[in-house]
Amino acid sequence: MRKVILYIAMSVDGYIADNNGGVNWLNQNEEYIDSYSSFINHIDTVIMGWNTYHQIVTELSPTTWIYSNLISYIITHKNITSTEQIIFYNENPCNLVKHLLTQNGKNIWICGGANIVQQLMKQNLIDVYYISIIPTILGNGIRLFESINHCINLHLLKTQNNNGVIELIYEKK
Amino acid sequence: MRKVILYIAMSVDGYIADNNGGVNWLNQNEEYIDSYSSFINHIDTVIMGWNTYHQIVTELSPTTWIYSNLISYIITHKNITSTEQIIFYNENPCNLVKHLLTQNGKNIWICGGANIVQQLMKQNLIDVYYISIIPTILGNGIRLFESINHCINLHLLKTQNNNGVIELIYEKK
Repeated sequence: MRKVILYIAMSVDGYIADNNGGVNWLNQNEEYIDSYSSFINHIDTVIMGWNTYHQIVTELSPTTWIYSNLISYIITHKNITSTEQIIFYNENPCNLVKHLLTQNGKNIWICGGANIVQQLMKQNLIDVYYISIIPTILGNGIRLFESINHCINLHLLKTQNNNGVIELIYEKK
Repeated sequence: MRKVILYIAMSVDGYIADNNGGVNWLNQNEEYIDSYSSFINHIDTVIMGWNTYHQIVTELSPTTWIYSNLISYIITHKNITSTEQIIFYNENPCNLVKHLLTQNGKNIWICGGANIVQQLMKQNLIDVYYISIIPTILGNGIRLFESINHCINLHLLKTQNNNGVIELIYEKK
């Protein structure tokens, strides 16, 4: 059965971006990239929010869509025409995930941001938490984990140390 | 030279206690205790806030002081008479740490809570971050890391997996 996987990097103090949404501090840690290729082999769908999408197409790769081998869902209330590859989705991401889970396919990658992660966690829809911890205390910024009203017990599947970036892979119990 | 060590457990989402200050969810993970004996051998001083102290003497061990082999500093504005072993200190914990660092001794354990950790981090006084991550998303509570105005780059010294509780040991660069 396909799984819903949060694959994301955060600082030791739990931030995924600085106060302006910037992620340049992540790029100081290129070793983080190492695990990506083995992860992405088992993924055929990526879900992200508008800010994450906008950052990719304006800063990271303005000319080509970097996830061209995946079906990409961008959660947004903006009225933008979808393509076959990039689908702009203006409903609750939980509904999207529940729908995708009724279809066959590889795993589904939750790419961020924090708001989408929080919505999915509230409905306990994330099966695997794949968190890379960057060896930095960022001090402030956008937190990965905002408050939810219930506890989620996890089982640690694996850890990996990529040159100081520690990857923690948990599945929900 | 003696070092200032934050040795503490937090949930995957960064909480050290629930909203009422409760830490019962920690006790479900007894393996966490395993690393304590090797850690404590290099410690002769512990610093904690009033809430942490109060919780220990009311809930954990009402009859005997559990850190009897350490000099314990309790940061509080309450006017309580100190003993040789338990010293109630009503100034800024940064001043205490700076004073202790001028004296010979073993390492200094920062035991919590979050407010004391934050004050010391603001002055970059913590040398080693020894964080045990409990395999639970607590959902809400008291965060270990509150906002500070600067970034602290860390070097990952060691990790250890104690039956699902992963210990991350960093030193500041």
